[in-house]
Amino acid sequence: MPPQTALEPLAAIASAAGNDVGTGATVWFTGLPSAGKTTLALALADRLRSAGHRVEVLDGDAVRPVLSPELGYSRADRDANVARIGWVAELLARNGVIVLAAVVSPFAAARDQVRQRHTEGGTRYFEVHVATAVEVCAERDVKGLYARQREGAMSGLTGIDGEYEPPLSPELRVDTAVLSVSDAVERLDRLVTKENPT
Amino acid sequence: MPPQTALEPLAAIASAAGNDVGTGATVWFTGLPSAGKTTLALALADRLRSAGHRVEVLDGDAVRPVLSPELGYSRADRDANVARIGWVAELLARNGVIVLAAVVSPFAAARDQVRQRHTEGGTRYFEVHVATAVEVCAERDVKGLYARQREGAMSGLTGIDGEYEPPLSPELRVDTAVLSVSDAVERLDRLVTKENPT
Repeated sequence: MPPQTALEPLAAIASAAGNDVGTGATVWFTGLPSAGKTTLALALADRLRSAGHRVEVLDGDAVRPVLSPELGYSRADRDANVARIGWVAELLARNGVIVLAAVVSPFAAARDQVRQRHTEGGTRYFEVHVATAVEVCAERDVKGLYARQREGAMSGLTGIDGEYEPPLSPELRVDTAVLSVSDAVERLDRLVTKENPT
Repeated sequence: MPPQTALEPLAAIASAAGNDVGTGATVWFTGLPSAGKTTLALALADRLRSAGHRVEVLDGDAVRPVLSPELGYSRADRDANVARIGWVAELLARNGVIVLAAVVSPFAAARDQVRQRHTEGGTRYFEVHVATAVEVCAERDVKGLYARQREGAMSGLTGIDGEYEPPLSPELRVDTAVLSVSDAVERLDRLVTKENPT
């Protein structure tokens, strides 16, 4: 028998399975369209999966057609969409999954309810404000929303003619115009795994 | 060092954590109101949790206010509700959770789409038809729906004046008027854990 303590293989297996009890968490990326929420979530997902974690990305745009096809972009509808994604996130996170939710989620009260649901369930929660300046977001305009708004083809665009309430005390604030994706992922990784290093 | 192979403690830990990769599954209970879906789901949940599994119960009535408050009981709305719960179930199940979904889900096509989503994701799926006779369900009438329908206070009650398409080839069919809860749970437990004994 090779020299080893009983704990070594256990830890290795737990890490490989990536789902040891207690590692679940929700990382909630909030910010303007084109701020970089999805980019950061996907890059962080890669990093965490490589380290053996179970990860799910809940992208607001991708989830909407499944969970909230009938909802629009009024305040009530946005809040309802946030609440649904938050509910799903907590369900997953309390079962050991690291959930990366990328949702504009412009209103503080709705975000705070998601946080509260996690707190009540004893589930780890990290709010990340992707605080890229609106001018930078409008320049990137990944989905052409800013152009459509300028052309008068849409209204209520968050950050332009739609309200955005910045988080007052997020666990992390990232300006993607200043910080590179890899540096931001480095900080996010530390944030999420600090209590549960693999 | 006590005499042991390296595998013994590993297996013990995996079982205790109850979330070793591959044990996830969705058990989808379909049947008339008061057929016993929720009762069976809750009893099975207790049994599986005792054995160390991660379990979530998605009860149609409990999930609706969160996920589908705007949906009614038309065919389209019922199908949409089934699709949402099915989506959440698959997300959880592919992350090692045993999901017990108790949803009337009267229409075969919507149920089959849930199954297909699981099949495509390589996620285990078991359809359980809680096939209690409508007369027994109406007699139990846990939520008073059958009485309200008789009094003309509601219509479209599944099994009475609302359609129910029984599954043609469910993984298990249970008549709770014949089988006791504990016997049914015994069969369900065997069904779910046969490939992944703890």
